[in-house]
Amino acid sequence: MTPHDQAGDGVRALLAPDEFHGRHIGPSEAQQAAMLARLGHPSRDALIRATVPPAILLDAPLAFEGPATEADALAELRGLAARNQVWRSYIGAGYHDTLVPEPIRRNVLENPGWYTAYTPYQAEVAQGRLEALLNYQQMIIDLTGLPVANASLLDEATAAAEAMAMARRASKSRSTRFFVDADVHPQVLSVIRTRAQWMGFEVVTGHAETVLGGDTAQTGGDSDFFGAHLQTPDTQGRLRDFTPQIAALHAAGARVSVGCDPLAAMLVKSAGAMGADIAIGSAQRFGVPLGYGGPHAAFMSAREELVRTMPGRIIGVSKDAAGNPALRMALQTREQHIRREKATSNICTAQALLANMAGFYAVWHGPQGLRRIALRVNAMGRLLAKLLAEVAQARGGAPLQPAHAAWFDTLAFDVGTLLADIRERAAALRINLRELPAAEGEPARIGIALDETVKPVDIVDLVFVLTGQHLDAASLEAALDALPADPASVPAALRRTDAVLTHPVFSRHHSESEFVRYLKKLENRDISLVHSMIPLGSCTMKLNAAAEMAPVTWPEFAAIHPFAPREQAAGYAAMLEQLGRWLAEITGFAAVSFQPNSGAQGEYAGLLAIRDFLAARGQGHRDVCLIPASAHGTNPASAQMMGMKIVVVACDDQGNIDLADLDAKIAKHRDAVAALMVTYPSTHGVFEDTIVEVCRRVHDAGGQVYMDGANLNAQAGLTKPGLIGADVCHMNLHKTFCIPHGGGGPGMGPIAVAAHLAPHLPTDPLSGEPGSVSAAPFGSALITTISWMYIRMMGASGIRKATEVAILNANYVAARLQDYFPVLYRGHSGSVAHECILDMRNLKAEYGVSAEDVAKRLMDYGFHAPTLSFPVADTLMVEPTESEPKAELDRFCDAMIAIHGELQKIRSGEWDAEDNPLKCAPHTAAEIAGEWTHAYSRETAAFPLPWVREAKFWPSVKRIDNAAGDRHLVCSCPPMSDYEEDDAPEAHPAPAVEPAGATA
Amino acid sequence: MTPHDQAGDGVRALLAPDEFHGRHIGPSEAQQAAMLARLGHPSRDALIRATVPPAILLDAPLAFEGPATEADALAELRGLAARNQVWRSYIGAGYHDTLVPEPIRRNVLENPGWYTAYTPYQAEVAQGRLEALLNYQQMIIDLTGLPVANASLLDEATAAAEAMAMARRASKSRSTRFFVDADVHPQVLSVIRTRAQWMGFEVVTGHAETVLGGDTAQTGGDSDFFGAHLQTPDTQGRLRDFTPQIAALHAAGARVSVGCDPLAAMLVKSAGAMGADIAIGSAQRFGVPLGYGGPHAAFMSAREELVRTMPGRIIGVSKDAAGNPALRMALQTREQHIRREKATSNICTAQALLANMAGFYAVWHGPQGLRRIALRVNAMGRLLAKLLAEVAQARGGAPLQPAHAAWFDTLAFDVGTLLADIRERAAALRINLRELPAAEGEPARIGIALDETVKPVDIVDLVFVLTGQHLDAASLEAALDALPADPASVPAALRRTDAVLTHPVFSRHHSESEFVRYLKKLENRDISLVHSMIPLGSCTMKLNAAAEMAPVTWPEFAAIHPFAPREQAAGYAAMLEQLGRWLAEITGFAAVSFQPNSGAQGEYAGLLAIRDFLAARGQGHRDVCLIPASAHGTNPASAQMMGMKIVVVACDDQGNIDLADLDAKIAKHRDAVAALMVTYPSTHGVFEDTIVEVCRRVHDAGGQVYMDGANLNAQAGLTKPGLIGADVCHMNLHKTFCIPHGGGGPGMGPIAVAAHLAPHLPTDPLSGEPGSVSAAPFGSALITTISWMYIRMMGASGIRKATEVAILNANYVAARLQDYFPVLYRGHSGSVAHECILDMRNLKAEYGVSAEDVAKRLMDYGFHAPTLSFPVADTLMVEPTESEPKAELDRFCDAMIAIHGELQKIRSGEWDAEDNPLKCAPHTAAEIAGEWTHAYSRETAAFPLPWVREAKFWPSVKRIDNAAGDRHLVCSCPPMSDYEEDDAPEAHPAPAVEPAGATA
Repeated sequence: MTPHDQAGDGVRALLAPDEFHGRHIGPSEAQQAAMLARLGHPSRDALIRATVPPAILLDAPLAFEGPATEADALAELRGLAARNQVWRSYIGAGYHDTLVPEPIRRNVLENPGWYTAYTPYQAEVAQGRLEALLNYQQMIIDLTGLPVANASLLDEATAAAEAMAMARRASKSRSTRFFVDADVHPQVLSVIRTRAQWMGFEVVTGHAETVLGGDTAQTGGDSDFFGAHLQTPDTQGRLRDFTPQIAALHAAGARVSVGCDPLAAMLVKSAGAMGADIAIGSAQRFGVPLGYGGPHAAFMSAREELVRTMPGRIIGVSKDAAGNPALRMALQTREQHIRREKATSNICTAQALLANMAGFYAVWHGPQGLRRIALRVNAMGRLLAKLLAEVAQARGGAPLQPAHAAWFDTLAFDVGTLLADIRERAAALRINLRELPAAEGEPARIGIALDETVKPVDIVDLVFVLTGQHLDAASLEAALDALPADPASVPAALRRTDAVLTHPVFSRHHSESEFVRYLKKLENRDISLVHSMIPLGSCTMKLNAAAEMAPVTWPEFAAIHPFAPREQAAGYAAMLEQLGRWLAEITGFAAVSFQPNSGAQGEYAGLLAIRDFLAARGQGHRDVCLIPASAHGTNPASAQMMGMKIVVVACDDQGNIDLADLDAKIAKHRDAVAALMVTYPSTHGVFEDTIVEVCRRVHDAGGQVYMDGANLNAQAGLTKPGLIGADVCHMNLHKTFCIPHGGGGPGMGPIAVAAHLAPHLPTDPLSGEPGSVSAAPFGSALITTISWMYIRMMGASGIRKATEVAILNANYVAARLQDYFPVLYRGHSGSVAHECILDMRNLKAEYGVSAEDVAKRLMDYGFHAPTLSFPVADTLMVEPTESEPKAELDRFCDAMIAIHGELQKIRSGEWDAEDNPLKCAPHTAAEIAGEWTHAYSRETAAFPLPWVREAKFWPSVKRIDNAAGDRHLVCSCPPMSDYEEDDAPEAHPAPAVEPAGATA
Repeated sequence: MTPHDQAGDGVRALLAPDEFHGRHIGPSEAQQAAMLARLGHPSRDALIRATVPPAILLDAPLAFEGPATEADALAELRGLAARNQVWRSYIGAGYHDTLVPEPIRRNVLENPGWYTAYTPYQAEVAQGRLEALLNYQQMIIDLTGLPVANASLLDEATAAAEAMAMARRASKSRSTRFFVDADVHPQVLSVIRTRAQWMGFEVVTGHAETVLGGDTAQTGGDSDFFGAHLQTPDTQGRLRDFTPQIAALHAAGARVSVGCDPLAAMLVKSAGAMGADIAIGSAQRFGVPLGYGGPHAAFMSAREELVRTMPGRIIGVSKDAAGNPALRMALQTREQHIRREKATSNICTAQALLANMAGFYAVWHGPQGLRRIALRVNAMGRLLAKLLAEVAQARGGAPLQPAHAAWFDTLAFDVGTLLADIRERAAALRINLRELPAAEGEPARIGIALDETVKPVDIVDLVFVLTGQHLDAASLEAALDALPADPASVPAALRRTDAVLTHPVFSRHHSESEFVRYLKKLENRDISLVHSMIPLGSCTMKLNAAAEMAPVTWPEFAAIHPFAPREQAAGYAAMLEQLGRWLAEITGFAAVSFQPNSGAQGEYAGLLAIRDFLAARGQGHRDVCLIPASAHGTNPASAQMMGMKIVVVACDDQGNIDLADLDAKIAKHRDAVAALMVTYPSTHGVFEDTIVEVCRRVHDAGGQVYMDGANLNAQAGLTKPGLIGADVCHMNLHKTFCIPHGGGGPGMGPIAVAAHLAPHLPTDPLSGEPGSVSAAPFGSALITTISWMYIRMMGASGIRKATEVAILNANYVAARLQDYFPVLYRGHSGSVAHECILDMRNLKAEYGVSAEDVAKRLMDYGFHAPTLSFPVADTLMVEPTESEPKAELDRFCDAMIAIHGELQKIRSGEWDAEDNPLKCAPHTAAEIAGEWTHAYSRETAAFPLPWVREAKFWPSVKRIDNAAGDRHLVCSCPPMSDYEEDDAPEAHPAPAVEPAGATA
């Protein structure tokens, strides 16, 4: 449309509510036409009709609001935000308000250089965030007093459940009982109970000192447990020393995890010093906004001998090919526990961005600063107690005294009949307190958790709320003058005596200039979406638009406590209702739960709903989960966590589900089939024609169909899981719906279900009862605003258009590259879906080069490699997404074609078999400037194509020396082959193009 | 203070309201102690007492609020922000609401990589913003239809005054009369009148068509003018074709500037097409927030033959030493007009950040997008007119019709007695209209300016405001259906017919992924404060803290129109009152004006106040301005603009003002002395002991003392201009008070004056009368929030501490480097002030190397060079500021010492006299990877010290080939030597250390 065309149109053509389409979608209409011409399709619609099976292709548009411009969508969301009320929160329970240091907010949380990066699988172009995560791990190790830590988990409650699973594996006890102290946070108890229920564990709760016995000498306690989870400070704020109980449990062969608080840990004896095997907790209060529940980084540390059973990612120090130190993920550890049949965790996405923020918070404040914050928070509590006593004295009455003697920052008060008045005064001052569950016959008890935002004037308000007495300024000043800094409420025996955060990184960056330069130095070592496309198959690295990200730091969304009264979160409720409605419409389902805070958690929640539903119909015995050989590794892991038996269904030679094998497996397990887990389009990047039939057969067998949402970006607006025949699916909001990957998290994995499963969605974690899957009712609620913005700006028409262009882009790349690298699987018409697998299995034999060499060589061209060796070993899976413009696709293809040319030079002998740019890739600037020993030139190494000069990205280290046996997992998920039954057919069937040197 | 010390203190020690000190100030207390030890001073106080003359050293602390934490200061400012009311504004008058594209907001306006850079004097490490500014110039050239444009001016009104000055120089007419159309914006008229008053021009206003005659054939018009300034669309929104008037003026030898609107220019005949010599206007509506008046980029373009008289910076294309294209500032043009005695402009700081935003807005939208926006804005106006007609028809009355037939986006209505009702309804809907000045006996007229934020529902509200009639949705929809897109209110003869923005840069980056990558590519070519210190003497490149920057994008500050009723800006008023009080306290003066929006504008406003004051006392004949030889070049330029006679006062061999010469000059010009302009500490970086005496002698002679605020960072909290004896000073808020330099602007130059000058501060520009110096009443009000935050967080104690550490840092650098490069000037005790001059005048003779070679070689070490050749040719002036930590100072010193070592290799013959790393610096990555012809190694070239590897910054081009004769100006200001009187003594007296090869 030219300007002059427009002038001839009516004014409506100028209003342009769909302007955002052209911002989100990379290729212009003209570029799309050129790409379609190359593919031989007259229109996008023609391509789609040739690609998507007609039976499942939607003709009607999705039924929701039309597109909105950036400005209109932001204005609308501001209206919703205004309906949230940000009260001062003293609720605590694992969530504390915090001051996000402004340099971190601006330069990390609001900076696409940090938030658009992917999980650091390609470590050579990820040294910045690997260092940041290593800082985080060091911080956790120091604070918890245990020698190894991982690089974050999803939340404190799921971390506790993971710890239980670790305890089970490491325990010498044969007991199936697991003890949980009654005063852990209720959401922790709830999630543990959910997990235990389907793993066959009995959860026993009680007062640890009572149940387990008071000390080691006295063996009167019950110790028939394989493990226990304890917490200090506990949910009432009490500081407890579990040393004797842990010793007693150890004596019985059990393993013990302790939930702890990172700020308290600055002053208080560490979990390690108490003898704990594992420590877990939340790093939220280290500078990560409340966000109505998330995202935050949970932490986990453990004894050295448990490192191989620890879930999640662990960053480790290694060396590069030049012998220089280099960081990488120590994958083997993680792989170890996830790939075996004994898998007890499906942990995949971590909370990298939030862990980085928390680690930077410690770098910013340093040990002295953190100690000062801890002392100040404690002092505010002592100020409260002191002022309460003074008020009582002045009135001649009995003071309101803390219910417990030892506490760090959270005080409990038995308020009895005062409760109603307290409630009223608190509401008048817009203050939230916590009403602790009181046992029958006991007085009402409230909890007040203080945090680093609390100032003396806030304490004056709290005194008023508790007593109805207004203090004058002079009384406050006098009290402040008289109050010592010593944390008297922390008993001497419970005080920490060792030094923490002694590593120089925590002491060198306290001026803002130094700190920001440190952040920038790390940022500039990493490839993110601000540099070039990241064509990771199955990971959907699409645009994370600035307008989508803006609301994340609006205080109306960021500063709400997850357990704030629902009426204070009316804006969230309205926003989530709307987003839920859109997601239900996109998936063709009836109800949505936002509780799962990762894709894998979504799988788990979905299977939970299925098993719950079956049990309610008297089909609780059904426990077989059918999973195609091509599935993501999280599928069987999630099934395992649900106590299910995994039965692998084979794929045929086109990579599709083998219907005959499906029938055979169903026949074999007829009355036991609970579910099929299936990804659509398949992980082979193909719209399988038989999908409706597959679903029908599972249903006929009495099973339910779980659809993995990893590839929803190829469905949205074109078809629907519900239409195809699934009963439940999860949605990776961090793929299809534009939440950025954050360098390895956060993610968000809400599930949508058909009506019959709706009663079986996750329940409120605050109940303490089984049924919840995450610590917060709406998971990582804060970042759902990103997906809301995306859908609101795209509207139904944009969502469909995006999916169509994602498919067009993938087919264009396949068409440009097929003569150089065979495209492994295609649909019946020859199209791929939204991604394509480039076969590299012949490279070893033909050129002596691996797919990994190609991946590393791409770095020299400025690209992050596509997904390596998933779902088929020695292949690259390319998913360009709709957001990449034609010019970028062409640059990527040019690079791949140039690499193909380089391969020919190796074959022809022009280049040495070992000393060539592929085997020696990537090349660093230091190497280029140093002694040059290669036969090929520096220019060939660093600037292999002319446009590389435009914005050269320099890898900061050379190839990292991974320990032998490490496999390169993709998208956090290992290949399915590790789960195969003995009677399963060939795991990776011969592809259409016969590979040479295949390893499968 | 260790944590254990703290635990022993009272709780007050934990409250830490001064935490920000340690963030802003680079060296920790321990580092300061080490630096002081090296200097041989027992304490910071001892150093200060040895440095600052006792007579002027403050002992009492500044009288204002104590320091506040980041969070507390932000909360307090949020409270002030909440007192602003953001109404919908249809005021126009050169300011229009706009939609800041979110990717620009986040990645440019909120990104320190863009906003902390300096003016691109070191072009090799500034290619990113040079390209961005070139885009901006291209956009202006296209939109105005004139072939050359500069890289921005301060605001539309000052740009018009600059155009008048250009017209005077270029005109062939001997007339002293300048014609201004009566319907230019009132603030434009006001600023022109102020400037004309002291330049001896008579400003004639009237209706151009009436005064100048209707067409060329008819010569009845008055054409006895040296120039004219016209405007279309004019302030009433009327589109006018000035072709005949311009032709008539040209025939009389006059030059004509035309004020125009960039969005209108998408549809309307350009200024160039009308024959204008110069076009000016504001680029604000291209994505730059209103900000209560600024900062925004004004633009100027002109005929080719006028380029050498054009003020401001012009970016030009050149080549680097490798023959590759490279961008640079075409300084000669600017220098040409500023250094001569005929200087008619003091333009120095530009509005680079805002020009870049406007240019990126055009890159983002492209020609089609901008045309669509222009058509939509026009359509909203036609919708208004149409609905008004329909409402009238329905009521059977006469419609309210636009007062003018031809308009783009602004409609005038004669509302007569309806005015009161309209006012009331507008207020009820929180809508601001403009009440145009009505001539005696004419009906009340209102103006309604529409902009890109206006939607059809807003038009419905406007119809209600104008008529009291509520339109139903159906009427609106019907009207929209019936409305053509064609801009019928733009007469055919006035439509633009040529294509604009045809350069590919405006069409290649429309998807957000491409756009953000383009922004990042440019950003990564530039050194900014996020990389390393920028030790530019006299430029005070200190920390721009994230907390200081946050409020700039709060809508409560950003979305206020400069001419909104004052009661809607109550938050601004309170904030400016407080900031003004602090600045008055810091300077020791009685009143502050925020109107000057650059340092040079501050000088001009200060001299204006002085001349006004003198005139009011019957001393209007006093016109001599005494200026020391070491002054910034803007000083004489400002004096020139005030019609003053510049008399240079010599410096003695210590670089101080020569008292004898001062006496001689005073004696010579006794009854004519109006003012002395003096910088303190001197531009030589020394606290002159005689300053009080200098001021006294000028006062005794009947003159006033103007103190240049460039070096206020060495005074704040230690002494005060008012205490020293000055009558007025300006403050560079973008130096001492933390407004970032934005890559070459914005700046902010408020002035403070003693009580007797207070009545002579700038007046309201909206009056149209002489007396104002900027377009907006409070200059670039938006960014004053940055300085408010800085002072609020530092408090009196922090401000003084910062100044002390700035002096400590400078003395430490001087001490570390003095054995390698002589420090040219020192105070009586041997201390320097906050900066030091390193003498390089011997390098040519001793090593055959220039100071410029050293500056360029520093790039290879990752540093931006210090100020080169100001105030003394062939020296480097280093100002580290208080924000640089010791480690960074040491790295810089290490680099300088290493370069000294490199010099020895040249002298010893180890390195060739020509082929050495200094002469060949800087070195690019492409060069390192390519053919290597140098005798020294690549490693020596690129990684001369080990820590350079940590975060190597690669210059993107090699040494740029500046035209012979170009001199490297500093801080936008040329050396004083160009202003010397014939009878002035030697300009650059022999320094203490005899220079070799000095060029002065």
